[in-house]
Amino acid sequence: MVGAVIIAHSFIGKELIETAEYIVGKIEGIMAISIDFKMNAFEVRKVISEAMKQIDQGDGVLILTDLFGGSPANIAFSFLNKDKVEVITGVNLPMILTFWNKRKGRSLSELAKLVRLSGIRNIVVAKELMGEKGTFKKRIPNRDRQVSQK
Amino acid sequence: MVGAVIIAHSFIGKELIETAEYIVGKIEGIMAISIDFKMNAFEVRKVISEAMKQIDQGDGVLILTDLFGGSPANIAFSFLNKDKVEVITGVNLPMILTFWNKRKGRSLSELAKLVRLSGIRNIVVAKELMGEKGTFKKRIPNRDRQVSQK
Repeated sequence: MVGAVIIAHSFIGKELIETAEYIVGKIEGIMAISIDFKMNAFEVRKVISEAMKQIDQGDGVLILTDLFGGSPANIAFSFLNKDKVEVITGVNLPMILTFWNKRKGRSLSELAKLVRLSGIRNIVVAKELMGEKGTFKKRIPNRDRQVSQK
Repeated sequence: MVGAVIIAHSFIGKELIETAEYIVGKIEGIMAISIDFKMNAFEVRKVISEAMKQIDQGDGVLILTDLFGGSPANIAFSFLNKDKVEVITGVNLPMILTFWNKRKGRSLSELAKLVRLSGIRNIVVAKELMGEKGTFKKRIPNRDRQVSQK
C-alpha cells in the first residue's frame, strides 16, 4: 500500500493528520514532517529520507506539501528522481481523507491523481452551491463526528 | 478591507496563519477558531459570532473551513444568511496568501473567487509539470524564506 509524508511549515501536517484521525480513526502509513528553518538543507533532506524509508512498504510514497514554490515543496522536489515518489502541493484536509480512503489496491500515480482531484473539488464557495432561495440545492453531507446538539 | 476567519478542526487554522505570517509578515484582519467538540453548537456559534464582529471592518468576512461536510463548515454555513459573509471549504496555505495579497480594493465576492482559484491552481502533481528529461518545464518560483544552504 502507498504511504504518505506531509512536508510542511510549522505543524500544518501534524494538525491535518490529527484531524483526519479524529474523523476516521487511526491512519497507518502517514507521517508529518515540520520543516524547521534552523536546520540546514542537508539535515532536512536526511530527516525526509529517513521518514520515507520508514513509510515505504514497497509501493512508493506520496509526498504532500503545503505550498508550490515554498521551501518544503522545493526540497520535496529533489526526491522526484527516485522511483515511486510523487509530490503534490497545496495540501488540504480532503486530500488526507482521500489518501486514506482510496489507496487500497491503487498505484502511486493513480492515487496521486485522485488525491489532487479531491483537493481541488472540495474547494468550494458555498454561495455558488445555493439556489435563489438562499438554501443549498443539494443536501450537505455529514462527513464528521457531530458537534453535540444538546 | 475584507477580513477572514478560519474555522477548522484542531489547530489547522492557527498553523496556517503562523506559516503565512512567517512567509509574508504579520497579517491583520485574520483569525483562527479551533472547533472544540466538547463545546455544544450554541457555544461554537457564539465564539464564531464574536470573532466575526471583531474581524469585520464593514466590508465583510470570508470564512475559510477545512472540509466540505465537516462540522466546522456546516456551522459556518449557518452564517450565510447574514450580509457580507462568504464561506469557502478545503482551506490550504496558498488561499491564505492570496487572501493577504489580493484583498486590497476588492469586494468580498470578488476576493472569494480569487481565493478559491488560487487554492485550486496550487494543487499540483509535480511530475505532471516535468518534461521527458525529468526536469521542470518552467522555473519553480521561490515563494519562501530559504532554508539555510550552509
